[in-house]
Amino acid sequence: MANTYTHPDPQELDLISVLRAIADPVRLELIQHLHQLGEANCSTLLGSRPKSSMSHHFQVLRENGILHTRIDGVNHRNTLRLNELEERFPGLMNAILAASSRGS
Amino acid sequence: MANTYTHPDPQELDLISVLRAIADPVRLELIQHLHQLGEANCSTLLGSRPKSSMSHHFQVLRENGILHTRIDGVNHRNTLRLNELEERFPGLMNAILAASSRGS
Repeated sequence: MANTYTHPDPQELDLISVLRAIADPVRLELIQHLHQLGEANCSTLLGSRPKSSMSHHFQVLRENGILHTRIDGVNHRNTLRLNELEERFPGLMNAILAASSRGS
Repeated sequence: MANTYTHPDPQELDLISVLRAIADPVRLELIQHLHQLGEANCSTLLGSRPKSSMSHHFQVLRENGILHTRIDGVNHRNTLRLNELEERFPGLMNAILAASSRGS
């Protein structure tokens, strides 16, 4: 298990890759959930889903700059990188979070 | 050839499907180009690309509510459905157009 994760710099983020990472029902739900919670460990976010399939979704979100994972002992604490995303793509995450919270 | 195209109502648009439709380099370029031109027929938008492959991209954008195609004689005139998209997903297209125009 990694002691730390690599997170891309905001200026490295690619719009198409970010949109693709978000445009998935499981990942969009993860994003909404994290947005409500602020910070959450993986098990809180897993719900009833198998850890094996969820690891991939966490990885896609992390590698595309959407979430940050901080390792704290046995916990992996996740937060959305809203400030960096806002800096790189102004208004994008707000629009997506607003649209998804309306049940779209 | 169809005499008219079917376009989804704004309230039928699905956020994930719209994001997936946009998250493609050829389609994002088409969207940017149409945004600059306001209205354009297919041949103007094709550039040097083969019509066969582009028809699919036009169809994806049309079926997901991103562009409207009006048949005018032999011309197919395309426009972005910005007002409807703004009504359904406030701020989303503005954020994407702004980010993509910055060369993201």
